[in-house]
Amino acid sequence: MITIDFENRCEFGLCECIYAQIKTQILNGTLLPDEKLPSKRSFAEHLGVSVITIQNAYARLISEGYLYSIEKKGFFVTNLSLEEVPDFSKDSKNSPAENDSKIFLPQFEKTDFFTDFRNNSTSSEKFPFSLWTHLMRKVLKTNDERLLSRIPANGVFELRKAIAKYLLEFRNMNVSAEQIVIGAGTESLYTMLVQFFGRDKLYAVENPGYHKVAKIFELNGAAVVPVDIDESGINSDLLEKSSADVVHISPAHHFPTGVVMPVKRRREILSWANESENRFIIEDDYDSEFRFNGKPLQTLQNADENAKVIYINTFSKTLSPSFRISYMVLPERIVNDFFDRLGFYSCPVSAFEQFTLAEFINQGFFGKHIIRMKNYYRNLRNNLINQLEASKIASIAKINEEEAGLHFLLKLNSPLDGKRLQQKLEEHKIRIPLLSDFYYTKNLGDTPENPTFVLNYSGIQKERISETVRRMEDSIIQS
Amino acid sequence: MITIDFENRCEFGLCECIYAQIKTQILNGTLLPDEKLPSKRSFAEHLGVSVITIQNAYARLISEGYLYSIEKKGFFVTNLSLEEVPDFSKDSKNSPAENDSKIFLPQFEKTDFFTDFRNNSTSSEKFPFSLWTHLMRKVLKTNDERLLSRIPANGVFELRKAIAKYLLEFRNMNVSAEQIVIGAGTESLYTMLVQFFGRDKLYAVENPGYHKVAKIFELNGAAVVPVDIDESGINSDLLEKSSADVVHISPAHHFPTGVVMPVKRRREILSWANESENRFIIEDDYDSEFRFNGKPLQTLQNADENAKVIYINTFSKTLSPSFRISYMVLPERIVNDFFDRLGFYSCPVSAFEQFTLAEFINQGFFGKHIIRMKNYYRNLRNNLINQLEASKIASIAKINEEEAGLHFLLKLNSPLDGKRLQQKLEEHKIRIPLLSDFYYTKNLGDTPENPTFVLNYSGIQKERISETVRRMEDSIIQS
Repeated sequence: MITIDFENRCEFGLCECIYAQIKTQILNGTLLPDEKLPSKRSFAEHLGVSVITIQNAYARLISEGYLYSIEKKGFFVTNLSLEEVPDFSKDSKNSPAENDSKIFLPQFEKTDFFTDFRNNSTSSEKFPFSLWTHLMRKVLKTNDERLLSRIPANGVFELRKAIAKYLLEFRNMNVSAEQIVIGAGTESLYTMLVQFFGRDKLYAVENPGYHKVAKIFELNGAAVVPVDIDESGINSDLLEKSSADVVHISPAHHFPTGVVMPVKRRREILSWANESENRFIIEDDYDSEFRFNGKPLQTLQNADENAKVIYINTFSKTLSPSFRISYMVLPERIVNDFFDRLGFYSCPVSAFEQFTLAEFINQGFFGKHIIRMKNYYRNLRNNLINQLEASKIASIAKINEEEAGLHFLLKLNSPLDGKRLQQKLEEHKIRIPLLSDFYYTKNLGDTPENPTFVLNYSGIQKERISETVRRMEDSIIQS
Repeated sequence: MITIDFENRCEFGLCECIYAQIKTQILNGTLLPDEKLPSKRSFAEHLGVSVITIQNAYARLISEGYLYSIEKKGFFVTNLSLEEVPDFSKDSKNSPAENDSKIFLPQFEKTDFFTDFRNNSTSSEKFPFSLWTHLMRKVLKTNDERLLSRIPANGVFELRKAIAKYLLEFRNMNVSAEQIVIGAGTESLYTMLVQFFGRDKLYAVENPGYHKVAKIFELNGAAVVPVDIDESGINSDLLEKSSADVVHISPAHHFPTGVVMPVKRRREILSWANESENRFIIEDDYDSEFRFNGKPLQTLQNADENAKVIYINTFSKTLSPSFRISYMVLPERIVNDFFDRLGFYSCPVSAFEQFTLAEFINQGFFGKHIIRMKNYYRNLRNNLINQLEASKIASIAKINEEEAGLHFLLKLNSPLDGKRLQQKLEEHKIRIPLLSDFYYTKNLGDTPENPTFVLNYSGIQKERISETVRRMEDSIIQS
């Protein structure tokens, strides 16, 4: 039973004291939403106070919205996380609303957009929950002692073997399990790489690009330089001039422009790396699984003969963003050095999930899952593009790079500039990032003549596409 | 079916080529241990070569130990990770043994100790696998969309609420879910803290102490200063003199000495922190759950009124080292600032496990598990200590601080110094770390007069205790 401390802060009487402490326990999450409180009688007995005292405290909490009562069932905690905290306490100086606003609440940060092209959650229908449960149960049933042992820094051997095999079959990469390092999301891998290469090195990132990568390098104490991309990907002359030591690129499919790096540019970037011992390339292959047309491209690491390319990929895009398993492939020659320096770490991913994922891959379910998701995304994309092309937007729009990956660009010929259009879309509860949002330098990429939007469609709801396109028309055309 | 590339490196004929490529695929883990190879006939058809070519290649692989055959069943890959790679290839210049030794293989690093007091795996009998599976299945069945959504930087709300409630009940800490940050092992939390406090700060660690913490601070680019402990824990005068900004301590139970910090010293350390805005304390409560006697001590964060103490704990000690979930409790006042700067991270722990652990705690299973493990460890410890006290070692030994936690100290009055004794123990396949191993400065703690061993007993096998003590006698007394 919940306990009330009568020793402190109870100069205002028992009822006030009980009221205040229950309120605190609700606001700080000690009492859970919809949790049943003790009956008035038993609570009164427990605290040694009168039933009327409890009744008054409960009544006040109900009137303020902290509790609700169900007849003949009792008193329950209101689920404040789903509702607005009611504005009940204008009379109180130390109002709960004020207390609340002191604290940043990520889980309350709900987007109330009708469609959000920034969000890329996976559709929950598409995750094979029951299959996963089945495999997990099978893994846990083995009672293997390794399930409970400390995991080596690079992860569970079975998972690394499974990934090596997968990379051979699907990416034509001939790597050994020993070269693979399992991480908890790519963040933990970037942190390790900065610790390995050194924070005295200069890290180049693509401009425009995925800002999170730059931010992680910077938070790890390394200097970052954005290098412009052109129609072949990162510009090798500018890279040379930047004095960068390490470069982060996504040659298979640049985010957000969708540029695929041609062979000539790949060779230039590899030569750049070969010019100095300290130069390395981080190849981010984040959505290569979702190329819809054409043969998958060779990875840069495949073409690398001088142990210069670290290959990175993640299961967050293919399985779910809540699924924190990523991996990198180190060139064979640096493996020993890497473990000499960072081998003392424990792998951050739970052994249960590593063994389960290994089974998932080995039994061919991962390959099938990719095919299923590819179909799902292809339909979603075609549906969206068809409706856009049938809409009034088509007359002033051009869709770019729609061949690859989970996003495409929508370039508009509109008298309004991008920010203004974005604002109008948001008034219609549609959020779409602008290409210019991904530039590190502000004078590039988005002039009033050609506002370009990045449509990351993987998380949108199919049944909302018509209405979404209609709202886009309203925002873009009628303005 | 596996594919052989005849284009490259096949100047030695088809058989040699097939042999070499299968060998490579076995060594790099592409072909899995005990995986069945295609039948000779179907493989020959697939590759368009004669059956005799395949037969010769298979025969050579069998003679060298890479494959084994089972009559009427076929050909299978040898599990090289469990056996020594056979020394078959003296005739070959580029021997697999040589190739192998180039690469560091953490999973092969098997300790062949009879008993290892450094290892602290949990006993696999003690993990409630089927209960866990049941809860996981229940969680996955909810099909909750949050299972597949990006997780906020501080983790799943339900788990943070469950931890807040647990901390109130078991540690008498009144904290809100908003103050809690979920991490993947404490490593990820230390990394975040260095990024938050800054790597220009000086970090003090306990001397002797757990070296991993210092190493993580250093790898994150921060300077570390070891500060000596005395009979009350970290010495506050020395801490003041060290010019440290942030100090990492384990007041509930110092590792490895077992010192419990008394109230007076706690107040001194808190005053130290209050003297400057930049000073902070990281309180590592890593094994407070396993105090066997007496009431659990108040946490330092409980006594902190100035938002100076970050509390850290982990489920790796209580559930399993392979279980990568840890958490920290931020003082309310720094929560906003923390998320402003680091809130862009994704929480590194899978949503599946976070929701499952929340259920595990909320339904009271975690509390019960702790009680069960406490009994298990108490028995293990009593058994070991009783046998040590009944042995010949007792006459020259003193057991220190046996009241608390998962390790105790064995101080010996021996003419031999610690290193020599350690060597003799290792000859008997017993590994025990010395107290002096945990000092950062070498002239302290272990003189020839009093070699002191740290017995971390949580991972040892009960049925081996008698034999272990006998071997310890042989090493220590007969020498």
